[in-house]
Amino acid sequence: MSKKVENKRGVVARKVKGFRDIDSNLNQLKWKIINAASEVYKKYGFEHWDTPVLEYADCLGKYLPDEDTVDKGVYSFKNPELEPVLRADGKELRDDDAHVVMENAFLSMRYDLTSPLARRYAEGLLEKYQRHQLGQLKPPLFRRYQFGPVYRYEIKLGPGRFREFWQLDFDNVGTNDVAADAEVCMVLSDALEAIGLPRKSYVVKVNNRKILTGYLKDLGVENDLDEQNIIRVIDKMDKIGLDNVALELAGGRTDSSGAAIKGLNLDANLVIGIVDFIKNFSNQKTRQEVLADLRNLEIKNETAQDGIQELEKMDKILSTLDFDEERVIFDPSLVRGLAYYTGPVYEVESLQTYIDAKGVERRIGSICGGGRYDTLVENLLGIKVPATGGSIGVDRLAELLMLTNQAPKRKDGPVFIAYFDEELVPLYQRMARDLRDAGIETEVYYGMDKKKMKKQMAYADDRNCPFVILVGSNEAEKGVATVKNLKLGKELSNTISDKKEWNERVQKEIPMAELADYIKGEMG
Amino acid sequence: MSKKVENKRGVVARKVKGFRDIDSNLNQLKWKIINAASEVYKKYGFEHWDTPVLEYADCLGKYLPDEDTVDKGVYSFKNPELEPVLRADGKELRDDDAHVVMENAFLSMRYDLTSPLARRYAEGLLEKYQRHQLGQLKPPLFRRYQFGPVYRYEIKLGPGRFREFWQLDFDNVGTNDVAADAEVCMVLSDALEAIGLPRKSYVVKVNNRKILTGYLKDLGVENDLDEQNIIRVIDKMDKIGLDNVALELAGGRTDSSGAAIKGLNLDANLVIGIVDFIKNFSNQKTRQEVLADLRNLEIKNETAQDGIQELEKMDKILSTLDFDEERVIFDPSLVRGLAYYTGPVYEVESLQTYIDAKGVERRIGSICGGGRYDTLVENLLGIKVPATGGSIGVDRLAELLMLTNQAPKRKDGPVFIAYFDEELVPLYQRMARDLRDAGIETEVYYGMDKKKMKKQMAYADDRNCPFVILVGSNEAEKGVATVKNLKLGKELSNTISDKKEWNERVQKEIPMAELADYIKGEMG
Repeated sequence: MSKKVENKRGVVARKVKGFRDIDSNLNQLKWKIINAASEVYKKYGFEHWDTPVLEYADCLGKYLPDEDTVDKGVYSFKNPELEPVLRADGKELRDDDAHVVMENAFLSMRYDLTSPLARRYAEGLLEKYQRHQLGQLKPPLFRRYQFGPVYRYEIKLGPGRFREFWQLDFDNVGTNDVAADAEVCMVLSDALEAIGLPRKSYVVKVNNRKILTGYLKDLGVENDLDEQNIIRVIDKMDKIGLDNVALELAGGRTDSSGAAIKGLNLDANLVIGIVDFIKNFSNQKTRQEVLADLRNLEIKNETAQDGIQELEKMDKILSTLDFDEERVIFDPSLVRGLAYYTGPVYEVESLQTYIDAKGVERRIGSICGGGRYDTLVENLLGIKVPATGGSIGVDRLAELLMLTNQAPKRKDGPVFIAYFDEELVPLYQRMARDLRDAGIETEVYYGMDKKKMKKQMAYADDRNCPFVILVGSNEAEKGVATVKNLKLGKELSNTISDKKEWNERVQKEIPMAELADYIKGEMG
Repeated sequence: MSKKVENKRGVVARKVKGFRDIDSNLNQLKWKIINAASEVYKKYGFEHWDTPVLEYADCLGKYLPDEDTVDKGVYSFKNPELEPVLRADGKELRDDDAHVVMENAFLSMRYDLTSPLARRYAEGLLEKYQRHQLGQLKPPLFRRYQFGPVYRYEIKLGPGRFREFWQLDFDNVGTNDVAADAEVCMVLSDALEAIGLPRKSYVVKVNNRKILTGYLKDLGVENDLDEQNIIRVIDKMDKIGLDNVALELAGGRTDSSGAAIKGLNLDANLVIGIVDFIKNFSNQKTRQEVLADLRNLEIKNETAQDGIQELEKMDKILSTLDFDEERVIFDPSLVRGLAYYTGPVYEVESLQTYIDAKGVERRIGSICGGGRYDTLVENLLGIKVPATGGSIGVDRLAELLMLTNQAPKRKDGPVFIAYFDEELVPLYQRMARDLRDAGIETEVYYGMDKKKMKKQMAYADDRNCPFVILVGSNEAEKGVATVKNLKLGKELSNTISDKKEWNERVQKEIPMAELADYIKGEMG
C-alpha cells in the first residue's frame, strides 16, 4: 500500500468522547437500583412519565452547578431544521415585512430530568388553558417519577467521569407544603434502603437555602448574582475544604496543579461572616441542636426566619414518622450547586468507605440530591408554581455498591449447551427448550468455534456460565447428559489438586429427563 | 405593554418537533412489554448491554430503508468539540506539515440499535487485538439484548409518527449458523406470547434475501445499487400494493395526492419477471409448499440456491421444535428495507384488526423485524463477522395492545388520602405509611387546593385513584376513616340513581387499624 493511500481518513469504530457502553454486569445492578427505587416512588403515589432526551435549549435554561462549565456544560447543537421563531405569546415572530422569522434553533441533550419536567408541566397547562386564564389558576398537583440518561458537555473528563449518566427522579409540582419536602427525604431514605443500603450507611442532609440567603442579606449581599457566586464557592466545601473556600471568597488561590483560581474578591468582613456561619455547623448535631444554634444566630432577615421555620416543620414531621438522626440530619452549610433551588435542599451522603487501587481509604460522597425549586416553572409559564423533588444518581450508586462489595462483580451467564455434533443439534435445542420452560436461562452454542471444545469452554467461562452441558453421540444413545458445574469447579480448584477427584466432584452424568430438576437443585 | 415589547422573541414551553412525552398509562404498558420480552431474551442466553444514544455519524453508517430520507433520515449534528481526524489504522491524520488535522465531526442520534452494536463489537476487538491479528481471528460470539429510544429525522410527520421511538433488540454476532436464524424466529414468537399476544394473532414471516438477489441476477440485474433500489420498491408492497410496485419499477406513478412518484425505469421484461416472482407467493402456503414452489422456479444462480437451502434448514429446526405454520411462515416476497441485510430476513405481522375513529377496520401490520447482516461489522473491522438478530417495535406493539383492547387504557392511581385539617397531617402520614408498608400505593394530598374538597376529589378522579380516604376531626376522634370506593362508585352510578343508596354502597366507615386489610380485600 502506498503511503498516500494509508494517509486517508478512515472510519474507526469508537464511542463519542466521554460516552461509554454499559455491560451486563453493570446493567444488572443499574436496573436493580432503578426497579427497587421505582417501587418506592410508586408506593408514595408518584407516576411514571418520560420526556425526550432532546429539548429546545431555551426551554431547559441553564442552571448547571459548576461555574467553569456554566456556558459549556450543556451539550447543544444547532437544529438542522429551519423553524419559525416564536414570541412569548406562542405566536410566530414576524419581521417588518410581516414575514415569519425563521431560525435553526439550538437543541440540547437534557442535563437533568427536572428542567424537562418543568417544560412538560408548563406545556401541559398551555395546552389546557388560555394564557389569560393562567393568572387565576391554582397550579394543579403533578407527582411523577422518571429515570433515564442525562448529558453534560464536560471538557475535563477524569476517570469515571462521563458525559452520559443516569438519574432517577421524583418530583412534586404544584405544592408549597413543607410536608412535601419532608416526604422527599423519606422517599430518598426508603428508596436507598429498598435498594439494599443498610441503615446508618448513608444520611440524608437537609438545609434551607433561605437561611443562608437571609444571612448573606444581613451581611450586605443584595445582588442575586453575588449570592449565586458565593453559593457556588460554598458548594465546593466537600472537595476543597473550608480554608480554600475562604480563599476563593477572597482574593483567590492556587490549586494543587499550580493553576490560579480566581477569587470573588469579597470584603474581608463578609468572608469572615460566611466562614463563621459554616464553622458553626461543622460538627454533627441533633436536628434540635441545629435549630437552636440557628435561632441563636439571631438573623434579622425575614427570609432566613422563614427558612428556619420550614426546617422546624420538617423536623416535626420527620420525628412523628420516626425518621430520626440515623436517617435525616440538618446541615445549614449545605447549599447544592444548581441555581434553581429556592428553599429546602437535600443531599444524601454515603458514609461507607472503600479501599482504592493505591490502598487509600476513600468515601463515595454524595449519591442523591434534590431541593425545592419554586421559580423554575414560573420562568416558562409566568405564574408561580412551587415544586420540590429528589434524584438518585444511578451510576454513582451502582459504583458504590460495587466498590463496597454489596453487589456481585459479575452476573451469572446462562446454562451452556456445548456443540459436539451437527446431527445432535435438534436434541440440543429440545434440551434447551425444556430447561427454559423450567425457568432456566440456557444457550445452545451457535458460534464459529464448533470444532474446538476448548474455545467453547473458554466462551462459557467468559460468560460466567454456572453449568456446561456436554452431549456427544455416546451420551445421546444412553439418554444422558454430562453436566459440568463450572462454579463448583472454580471453588474446588483451590482445594483439590487431584484431577480425577476434581472431575468426580464437578462432573456428573444425568439422565436427560432429570436435567432441569438436577440443575435447579444445584442452583439452589 | 407596548407593541414593540410584545413582538420580541419568547421562550415557549414546547417539545422539539416530532418528539413526545410518555404518560404513565403508556409507560406502564411499554415497560410491561420490555420486561416480558427481556425475560424471554435472557432465557435464551442473551445478556443486557447498553450503548449511548449519541454516536459518531461515520460509525453508524447509513442503512435506512426509505429512499426519500436516506440522506436526511439520520438526526445528525456537528460536534461542538474539535477533534483529530483519524486514519483507517486509528492514528491521527496529519497534513503535509505534520500537523494533526482537526474537525468538528458529525454526531448522530442512533437510528437503530444494530449499528451501535456493530460499533461496540468492532471497538471491543480493536481494544483486544492488534489490527494485523484480526485476519487470523474467528470472530467471538456475542449475544446481547438492548432496549432504548432510537431516532429518525423524518420530515413528513403524520399522526402517530415520531422521531423518537423505542426498540427492543436481541442479536447474535459471530455466528454463520442458520440455527441462530431459526432461533431468532422462536425468540420473537416466544417474546410476543410472553407479552400476551395470543397464538394465531400474529405470524413470523421469513424469507432469505439471497433468493431474490439470485433471481434478479438471473434476470440480468448485476449492479448492487439497482438491486437495492428494486428491494426498496418491493418493500412498499404492503403499503401500495403490487400494481403500484409494478408502476414504480417501470415508468413511475401518481399517488393519491396527485404527486408524481419517479419510477426506476426498468426494462419491461425485468418488471414482469419481478411481478411474476411476487405473484407466486401471494397466497399463504405451508413452508413445504413454498420450498417446493421455489425449487420449481429453477433459479440457476448459486446464491439463490444457497438461500433456498438455508430456508430448508430453518424449516427443519422450526418443525423439530413444534414451531409450525401457526407461528412461522415463509414469504419469498418479504425483503425488509434496511440495506444491511444479507440473507434470512424476518418480519412479524399482527393479524389483529381494530376499528378506527371513522369506523373502518384496520390492521396494525408489522410489529417486529430482523435479519442476518453478515457485512455490517466488516465495514468497521475489515474482517467477516456474520451476525443475525431481531427487534420488537415497542411503541407499535403498545399501540396494538391498546387499539385491540388487550391493555387497560388507564392505569390505577394510588389510594388517595384527602386533606381536611392541618392538625391531622401527622395522622394522614402515619396512615399512608401503614398502607405503604402493606404494599398499597398511597398518596397524601400536598397540593394547593387544601380547602376545596371538590378539587381534591377531581384530582383523585383524574389520577384514577381506586379509593379515597377521608378523615376529619370526627373520624379521628372515633379512630375510624371513611373510605370511598371510586371504582365501584363509577360502576354503580349507571345503575343506582338514589344518592343515599349509592353512598351506602360506595362509602364505608372503617376502623383505622383495619384500613390496610379492608383496602387489600376490596382490591381483590
